[in-house]
Amino acid sequence: MAERIDFYFDFTSPYSYLASAAIDDLAAKYGRQVKWRPVLLGAIFKALGTVSLVKQPAMADYSVRDFARSARFLGVPYTHPAMFPVSTVAPARAYYWLHGQDCGMARRFAHDAFRAYFAEGRDISDIAVVKELAAAAGADLAAVETGMQDPAIKDRLRAETDKALAIGAFGAPWIVVDGEAFWGADRLPQVERWLETGGF
Amino acid sequence: MAERIDFYFDFTSPYSYLASAAIDDLAAKYGRQVKWRPVLLGAIFKALGTVSLVKQPAMADYSVRDFARSARFLGVPYTHPAMFPVSTVAPARAYYWLHGQDCGMARRFAHDAFRAYFAEGRDISDIAVVKELAAAAGADLAAVETGMQDPAIKDRLRAETDKALAIGAFGAPWIVVDGEAFWGADRLPQVERWLETGGF
Repeated sequence: MAERIDFYFDFTSPYSYLASAAIDDLAAKYGRQVKWRPVLLGAIFKALGTVSLVKQPAMADYSVRDFARSARFLGVPYTHPAMFPVSTVAPARAYYWLHGQDCGMARRFAHDAFRAYFAEGRDISDIAVVKELAAAAGADLAAVETGMQDPAIKDRLRAETDKALAIGAFGAPWIVVDGEAFWGADRLPQVERWLETGGF
Repeated sequence: MAERIDFYFDFTSPYSYLASAAIDDLAAKYGRQVKWRPVLLGAIFKALGTVSLVKQPAMADYSVRDFARSARFLGVPYTHPAMFPVSTVAPARAYYWLHGQDCGMARRFAHDAFRAYFAEGRDISDIAVVKELAAAAGADLAAVETGMQDPAIKDRLRAETDKALAIGAFGAPWIVVDGEAFWGADRLPQVERWLETGGF
């Protein structure tokens, strides 16, 4: 079986959201599966001494405009969140705990969390919202709360973020196909060419 | 007649080179013309207090890889220059002087200068190289050298760079269609959608 595609993302990253809407279907078209790996982009920026586009005054206005326009271009619903960016520790931990229970449940949760934040104006940094989304995806409400506090889950999120840093990721989404890294939702056409041709 | 598309670029910017190879044909497909406006990206970065991707250690390796891969993706010849980036004062001044003589000559020179630097390993910061390229495009060798020293030409390059800053450009290529700004060669598909639909 062909190697999985690694999809490193942060739940508060607009371009991650845009990529999340397309990447599974794109991979499936070429007989591939995708390993979703939420990470904390803020921790990556901190480690590298860089800053988010939207925190750079010269780039902020254009970036917010480009998020929405890129969403329209791709046909993905998007309303720029009033609170942006937000901490994504809660949804990321919930994701890894859910994944340990049932991959499909984790995937549903991830799509729902992205949509809740970028299309429905909900605050996904709020543990109550995250629990509700996890329950809607099929999890037991009490179990998910306990699971999110599990030291192994906390360690997992740290380890995935460290792994992203170790492989050179400095932004999100960071997509790795057969060892080749692609940064940004706007590189999906190149990812597709790569999958189609086996490298170009 | 439909409004011209503004194409702000720097001769040492790889993504500007990639956009330059496609933008005229793309515009012509929708009955538009393109106003090419070389600027000094280094002056823009300095004014904004930002730095080039390739000067940020975390991003440099990926960026150089992405330049070449994006070129292959678009079918444009590319060899990452040994000296990179370089000052583009000379080719930018030559461009504006040539444009005052003959638009077609300026356009040929611009394509040749991009190719000389990104495909043929030539140093386009060198006035001798620039003069040779201008002559190949049809200019008189002595006249181009005098023209590049003309205070009006020097002012023009400064004014175009200031104009780019004034409209919010923080990178290159910076493409403006009907007042809508697009940053990067990877936004050409969105530029095409915009031209096709009149805005989306």
